[in-house]
Amino acid sequence: MFGAIEAGGTKMVLAVGDEQGNITLQKEIPTTTPEETMPAILDFFKDKDVSAIGIGAFGPVCVDDKSPDYGRIGKTPKLPWVGFSWKEAFEGTGISVTVDTDVNVAALGEAVYGSGVGLEDLIYITVGTGIGVGVYLGGRLVHGMMHPEAGHILLDKRADDTFEGNCPYHKNCFEGLASGPAIKARYGTDAFLLTDREDVWELEADYIARALMQYICCYSPKKIILGGGVMHVDKLFPMIRQKTLEYLGGYIDTPQLQNIDTYIVPAGCGGSQGIKGALYLAH
Amino acid sequence: MFGAIEAGGTKMVLAVGDEQGNITLQKEIPTTTPEETMPAILDFFKDKDVSAIGIGAFGPVCVDDKSPDYGRIGKTPKLPWVGFSWKEAFEGTGISVTVDTDVNVAALGEAVYGSGVGLEDLIYITVGTGIGVGVYLGGRLVHGMMHPEAGHILLDKRADDTFEGNCPYHKNCFEGLASGPAIKARYGTDAFLLTDREDVWELEADYIARALMQYICCYSPKKIILGGGVMHVDKLFPMIRQKTLEYLGGYIDTPQLQNIDTYIVPAGCGGSQGIKGALYLAH
Repeated sequence: MFGAIEAGGTKMVLAVGDEQGNITLQKEIPTTTPEETMPAILDFFKDKDVSAIGIGAFGPVCVDDKSPDYGRIGKTPKLPWVGFSWKEAFEGTGISVTVDTDVNVAALGEAVYGSGVGLEDLIYITVGTGIGVGVYLGGRLVHGMMHPEAGHILLDKRADDTFEGNCPYHKNCFEGLASGPAIKARYGTDAFLLTDREDVWELEADYIARALMQYICCYSPKKIILGGGVMHVDKLFPMIRQKTLEYLGGYIDTPQLQNIDTYIVPAGCGGSQGIKGALYLAH
Repeated sequence: MFGAIEAGGTKMVLAVGDEQGNITLQKEIPTTTPEETMPAILDFFKDKDVSAIGIGAFGPVCVDDKSPDYGRIGKTPKLPWVGFSWKEAFEGTGISVTVDTDVNVAALGEAVYGSGVGLEDLIYITVGTGIGVGVYLGGRLVHGMMHPEAGHILLDKRADDTFEGNCPYHKNCFEGLASGPAIKARYGTDAFLLTDREDVWELEADYIARALMQYICCYSPKKIILGGGVMHVDKLFPMIRQKTLEYLGGYIDTPQLQNIDTYIVPAGCGGSQGIKGALYLAH
């Protein structure tokens, strides 16, 4: 059996499953401090006969398996976790650990079990509490110098948007303009209470489309898969598709873009892309 | 022996060389129409005992070697070349043909022989007549749906810049704001006659840095290599480095960014990155 951890800032999803991606047991525990959370994780896995665990972790996290810091969390606003090492945390258990970012692992889950089955080049974007992009190119997750942080690309702010953006690092980056907390900061109301406001979602779709245009230019993905809390607002999808084509201006002409309804799509794993991808990562 | 073609919009560079990247013969011919240019190319290679040719081609061009259209040029403004196939053009010669984009091939040249030796994750950006980005990640050139067209990412236009951009598809994309022709259109003077104008290069460095910030977020490259005519203005480099760090706002913290002088660098092949990369592509 294999184990999986979807390590988020508010909760940890723990699971056990097989090579075919079938999850036989799943549990959620709150993310507090490593001192509290890690013993609960070890307790969950201790009698599950798990040989390897795949972890999709909030970042920044070292995903270079040749580095002595492999699995170590960097400068995150979740201060108790700065310097915590997923690899060290499982030392002595006999369980091998594979670590990637939460969004990369979700991209993997979608590539293997979801909307991207059969494709070697796709991106997965989560639009929720934050915005992150998992990048799967040539059948492999992209790491590079650290790992992509493409939720922080700067966007041209729309002239009629007086909100300056709420990313503490860049203000008007994609996350600073279009995440759930950005919507709340702009309108003073939780996004889920604004579902009837057409202007809210027209602007949201516009920013998402501006970002997608950049990702298409940069990654040339064969599919773009969108997940996360904000994407539950279904009416976003048609607007995003139309606006993305408008921003591309006809410059890139491919069969995929001619079938935009099957190019920009919701996650096929219905929320379990992260934990399924982590399970796949384990083997 | 191996052959190489750097196929540009104004000239074709043709070369013959060995497996070690040594070029033994090189010739330039003008790019006119396939009917004129292709016979001259075949004539050059006909007695050179070349078994394989690598081609770095202007795009869009099909780089998917599993496609029946492999090597075929798409909708380019260079109208006589629309639909031309590099693969078909060498049929019957006994010479095998490998095709990638001009910038991807230059990225490969830099990775193998230039500023990126030993690195598996880098990008090469040419800023000249156009702006293009070659993407080399995990030791492979990125293709995906077509190939990256990252010179066309949209940029937040600076408030003091009254030029609207000259890209026919997107106006204020990177190419539309910062290519050689964009500089000429903004000031009414060729870029090379403006080298003493501090304001010109401060703005140019600003746009390049805005783009580099996006590329760092998207690709997480281990090195960024800049080439092309505009980059001969040496004073751009210190400004680009400083502004890129400012736009990142400290969000991404890596050893590479702490040594920005060795992270954002000029091409190491001194202009021959394209033809050398094409030669490498051949074998």
